[in-house]
Formats: sequence, C-alpha cells, structure tokens
Amino acid sequence: HTLTTKPWPLEEAVRRYSLAGVKGVTVWREALAGRDAAAAGQLIRNHGLSVVSLCRGGFFPADTVERRTWAIDENRRCIDEAEALGAPLVVLVCGAVTGQPLAESRKQISDGIAAVLPHAAAARVKLAIEPLHPMYAAERSAVNTVRQARSICRQFHSPWLGIAIDVYHTWWDDRLRADIAACGAEGTLFAFHLCDWRTPTIDFLDDRGLIGEGCIPIRQIRGWIEGAGFSGFNEVEIFSRRLWASDQAQYLEAIKAAYLAHA
Amino acid sequence: HTLTTKPWPLEEAVRRYSLAGVKGVTVWREALAGRDAAAAGQLIRNHGLSVVSLCRGGFFPADTVERRTWAIDENRRCIDEAEALGAPLVVLVCGAVTGQPLAESRKQISDGIAAVLPHAAAARVKLAIEPLHPMYAAERSAVNTVRQARSICRQFHSPWLGIAIDVYHTWWDDRLRADIAACGAEGTLFAFHLCDWRTPTIDFLDDRGLIGEGCIPIRQIRGWIEGAGFSGFNEVEIFSRRLWASDQAQYLEAIKAAYLAHA
Repeated sequence: HTLTTKPWPLEEAVRRYSLAGVKGVTVWREALAGRDAAAAGQLIRNHGLSVVSLCRGGFFPADTVERRTWAIDENRRCIDEAEALGAPLVVLVCGAVTGQPLAESRKQISDGIAAVLPHAAAARVKLAIEPLHPMYAAERSAVNTVRQARSICRQFHSPWLGIAIDVYHTWWDDRLRADIAACGAEGTLFAFHLCDWRTPTIDFLDDRGLIGEGCIPIRQIRGWIEGAGFSGFNEVEIFSRRLWASDQAQYLEAIKAAYLAHA
Repeated sequence: HTLTTKPWPLEEAVRRYSLAGVKGVTVWREALAGRDAAAAGQLIRNHGLSVVSLCRGGFFPADTVERRTWAIDENRRCIDEAEALGAPLVVLVCGAVTGQPLAESRKQISDGIAAVLPHAAAARVKLAIEPLHPMYAAERSAVNTVRQARSICRQFHSPWLGIAIDVYHTWWDDRLRADIAACGAEGTLFAFHLCDWRTPTIDFLDDRGLIGEGCIPIRQIRGWIEGAGFSGFNEVEIFSRRLWASDQAQYLEAIKAAYLAHA
C-alpha cells in the first residue's frame, strides 16, 4: 500500500517497490492527488507492478440525505478513478456516524452499495467491503465482522461485490476461520491485508505493527485464506507514525524481511 | 463500582454512595486491600447498601502450568473473599496471554472455570464471565463476544455460571440484542455494567465516558436486558483518568444525573 510508506510520493514509492522486487501496489487516493489516474496506472505498470486496488471508497452513512448523496457520488468518482488507474478493485471502508444507531448506519451502507454497484459493474471494477475492528464502530465502520460483510454480500449476490480481510481487524474473531472458508465458498474473497497488533497499542489509528512485531497469527490466517482458494496479493498495509518517521528505504527492506519470515 | 470513584477509599465511597441514595455497590478487590472482607461487607450493609459483586476474578491463561495453577488458586481466594464480603457474584475478566494462540487461551479459560466452579458452588457465589471488547483480545480477555461467553456457559450448564454484560464491551455487536435475549432464556444474565464510548477515545483502558457522554444506546440496551428478564442492579463502572482527576463528590452527583437522564 502506498500508505505503508506514506512519506514517499507515488512516483518514488513505485520506483522503490519495483527495485525491491515488490510485484503489486495498492494505491491510496491521497497518493493520486494532483495526478492523472490513467498516467499513474501506466507509470505503475511500466515499473512492472500490478495495480492491486484503489483505497478507498465507502463512508456511506451520513446525517443528511444531501451528504449521503454526496458520498454516493464520491464513490462513483472513486470507481471512475479506479477504472482509469487500471485498478480492478476498490476497497470500501463503509463508514459510521457517531451517535447514529449502528442499525441505521448499516442500512445506509447497504443503500450506498446498492446505489454504486451498477456503476462498479459497468466499469468492471470490483468493490470489497472491509470489515473494520469493532473499536472503529463509532466513527469509521459499522461493519465490524466478516460475518456482517458476508451478510451484505448475500443481499446483492453480485460478482462485483466481495470482502477485503485485514488481519488487524479480524484476528480476534473466534469465527474467523469459518467465515474465511465461507467467503471462499461464496466467491467473495477479494483482498487480504497484513500488518500486526502491538502490545500495548498506544494509538487507535496509527500504531499498527510490522508483520511479526505483534501477536496476530498471520501465517495461520494466510493459510486459511489460501485454503479458501484465494490466490491474489498479500498486501502489506501498515499505519504507523513510528514507522513513517523512520528511514523509508530501510523500512521497505525490513518489510520484505518481515514478510518472508512471518507471513 | 468502587473503581468508578477510585480516589475514594472503600469507607468514604460507601458513606458517600449511601448519602447519595445509591442502593448497591460492586467492590473491587483493590478496595479491600488491608481490610477484613467480612467487616467490609458489614460496613456496606450497615450503610443500607447491597453488595452486588466482587471484581474481579479470572485471568486464567498463562504460559506455564505453575502460573495457571496459581491463577486457579487465586480465583478460589477471590471466591472466599466474595463469600466473606457477602457478595453473591464474582465477575471474571477471563484473561489472555500476548502471543499465545487465542484458541489455547480460550481452552485455558474453560479449564480454569472448570477448576473453580465447584468451589464457587460450595461457597454459593456465582461467577459471571464478562466478555471484553475485541480490542482487549491481546492482553486481557480472549472472550470477546456474548456469544462466546454463552458457549462457555453451555459447556457447564451450572446455575453458578453466567455472564456480565457491559455496554462498553458489547455495544458494537450486531448480535447483541439476540444474544441478550438468549442469555435471558438460558438463565445466564447475571450482571449489567454501564458507561459510555467517547469519540475519539484516547486511551485503550482509562478513557471511558460518563453515561450520555458517548454514542452507546444505553437505554435501548437496558431495555433489551430488562426484556430478557434481568432485574438486578444497573452498575455504573467507569474507568477514566479524566474523571478520577475531578472532584469526586461533584462527579458522584453527575453520575446520578446522567444515570437518570440517559440510562
């Protein structure tokens, strides 16, 4: 993920990833700011990298109709951007409104997906619901388990709608293995994100760990994912002020070593 | 909970709660330090308060047999203390070992409960498994949903084993309403804890909110709890460095007002 090495502009990230032997990149929309998406996609492919996905759409719930309509329009723009970039997938962080009942936010998420899914299908861009850790339920996503994401997917039965599983958000769930297997059977295993859970975690957002620095059984979960038929990229997505403050070139080497040792 | 007004020693808490019209108190073991449990129970009852429960037992998982045996012994001592205090219930924060597979911690939790449940029954002290928020899975509890707690209770089918539901730990769960109803049917609804979820939350442990300060639908969840047949105390349990630093007498008045307005 470009966000993993947030200090690097897109061009430097792509060049460095390519030199390091990385084979694919998920682009964050922030990294595209001021750039032409099609040209960015070409640059990435010219460096021998696949575009894995565009992060991120979603954030459908809002407290007014106007804002929900704006969110839907913004998701259509995100899908257009993914198409131009050549990204086959948009990851959805579904959203939540603090103080709004979760059931209402969940309804608004389904309504938002219903509104944009035809646009995604027409663009041949898949959408992946990413369940977020329950500690984000108040602000970032009212979809907090793989089981919930599966339930939304079943509402639509569309080959363009699936799930992104991030070990950080899901590792604690005693149903994870069963839900991953079910996603495989249902054809909704669209993306797999890796980082680690540090103890103690000192920031709700930006204190994730490098693979192997924490307690998540990453290799075991990867085994479940592959056992369910997933053959896509294993995406390293780490939000960490600590690691962003370090030398990013050395950090990229550390990521490679950690991935090979622990993932 | 004595911990809600942590700066007050037990005697002052009991006196102040009683004057404020509070009808019951859950005692934290820390508040009993250096005191005779039976005398403390008598003091509490002399002030017209019921002893609701003793917090807390649990923390069964450990990395060696010796430590797990120690934890079981410590839980037996906790049950003895509850009996002396006249507390009908011990709340279990079940525990977790960072880096140990959650499945193993969950097995050790069941083993620990199996080891102490006869002692609890003999002492006529109930045990309540408190599912903790998934953000505590790495360190404090490998039991993170009411559904998981129900599954443990079903292993034992004992009238001495049930569940403590804390809105802070469970509010995000889309199955909460159904699980509360099931607990009611299964006879395992033993305790109900109240506080609120602040946005943003700035500390994983000690930044809980006063009732009404956050986004938890406390009154709705209380309705589900009472609809499931619960008629015990509604326990205000707030860990907050911010609120502990405030004038505790004013804070107690604020708790009463918040409880009446929002719970």
